Amino acid sequence: MQKPLILITNDDGITAPGINALVSFMKEIGEVVVVAPDSPQSGQGHAITLDYALFSAKISSNEEANGHLAYSCSGTPADCVKLGLQEILTRRPDICVSGINHGSNSSINVIYSGTMSAAIEAGIEGIPAIGFSLCDFSWNADFEQAKESIIKIVKSALKNGIPNGVVLNVNIPKLKKEEIAGIKICRQARANWKERFDKRTNPMGKEYYWLTGEFELLDKGEDTDEHALANGYISVVPTQFDLTAHHAIQGLNNWNLHE
Amino acid sequence: MQKPLILITNDDGITAPGINALVSFMKEIGEVVVVAPDSPQSGQGHAITLDYALFSAKISSNEEANGHLAYSCSGTPADCVKLGLQEILTRRPDICVSGINHGSNSSINVIYSGTMSAAIEAGIEGIPAIGFSLCDFSWNADFEQAKESIIKIVKSALKNGIPNGVVLNVNIPKLKKEEIAGIKICRQARANWKERFDKRTNPMGKEYYWLTGEFELLDKGEDTDEHALANGYISVVPTQFDLTAHHAIQGLNNWNLHE
Repeated sequence: MQKPLILITNDDGITAPGINALVSFMKEIGEVVVVAPDSPQSGQGHAITLDYALFSAKISSNEEANGHLAYSCSGTPADCVKLGLQEILTRRPDICVSGINHGSNSSINVIYSGTMSAAIEAGIEGIPAIGFSLCDFSWNADFEQAKESIIKIVKSALKNGIPNGVVLNVNIPKLKKEEIAGIKICRQARANWKERFDKRTNPMGKEYYWLTGEFELLDKGEDTDEHALANGYISVVPTQFDLTAHHAIQGLNNWNLHE
Repeated sequence: MQKPLILITNDDGITAPGINALVSFMKEIGEVVVVAPDSPQSGQGHAITLDYALFSAKISSNEEANGHLAYSCSGTPADCVKLGLQEILTRRPDICVSGINHGSNSSINVIYSGTMSAAIEAGIEGIPAIGFSLCDFSWNADFEQAKESIIKIVKSALKNGIPNGVVLNVNIPKLKKEEIAGIKICRQARANWKERFDKRTNPMGKEYYWLTGEFELLDKGEDTDEHALANGYISVVPTQFDLTAHHAIQGLNNWNLHE
């Protein structure tokens, strides 16, 4: 039987430790092809490149050393998935996995996440897809602790399938392996960022800003990803790209805009 | 009574005819402040600027000539909203409107849309927000045809309020005013883009790609935005940023990942 073909991408760039960890885990399951940004793309949301040309390069050292194909791409995570599917892969992948992100993509962070936008792009194309994030921004984070759980989730997805229109957003707490309480299916917690702009003046006297902020949790629900993570669980949120707020349609009809 | 304060942004950039049209319409309703990108940001999705500093400049000619404050920002549409709310506006706006986009943001395009990401960013901050798009990519598109409908929708939103967690995605067909059939509340149609990469070789012999593609509608539902637009209606889709696919939670629990 043919091994499952696994397309791997991320938003921290092709040299990030997180994607290297994911590649090593996925090699225990299937055939791996990497198409990942040639530079960090954090906070890129679902950006795509319309106004610039895209460059892509085969990272041949990877193939020789590790037995898998790897390509860098000058675009965003969503571009990487599009390019991988249309130009690089010779057959349709069985699954697309994105990450492991250096830092959380739980709660409202999913909206800003390049990691998740890559998974969502694959989902739009009808390919089962999962984004993985470790709640540790460090470049030297311990990804090994998550190995067993990540393999379990990907194997389950390959076996059970992921419903059409759904991709999985998996966040892993920053804990030792033996401290992980388990895996929980959750909903996205309500939250936002309390922004603060750090205003400075450059040597030419021109003002500029750095975006900073603090995460503000607005939701104490025990069924949320934030609650799961705070209690030592890996959170799995089924995430959709039909953004329609179906519950709001009736109320809007009462505005009588058609009159 | 104080006039409503209206924050206006877009993704085509502060010099685009579409935002100028929206400014002129909104001046009939309230006090207008513009914070918009200094260059085009189409396809930026919900990108935010984390790795670069942001510059902002007051466009003083606008204030003198037109009686409103306008600021350019070097960041994305979502950055513009954050900067506007935190650094530029002296009171909380009553509504944020984004657009008028030169081109459709119906159906799956909402995911890639900088116009809608600005509206969604305002929604995350708890501010009523609407994105407007005209289904005409031309720089010389006729925005005047939409004036009456846009004013009607914004006035209704100010009067009725928009539910928490919901922002409106309004698309306007490319028609003459007298051909517009009305305004319809809709759901987002299922669709994707059939990508094609136009592969070229640069003068140095290096290959590069341009992303092109064709919109593929996968949904014939009469309650969709695409159906409304095809039949001459302005479509209004209530759009949410809780991406949880609640219907998929039970199925995922059956994977028994907790065992």
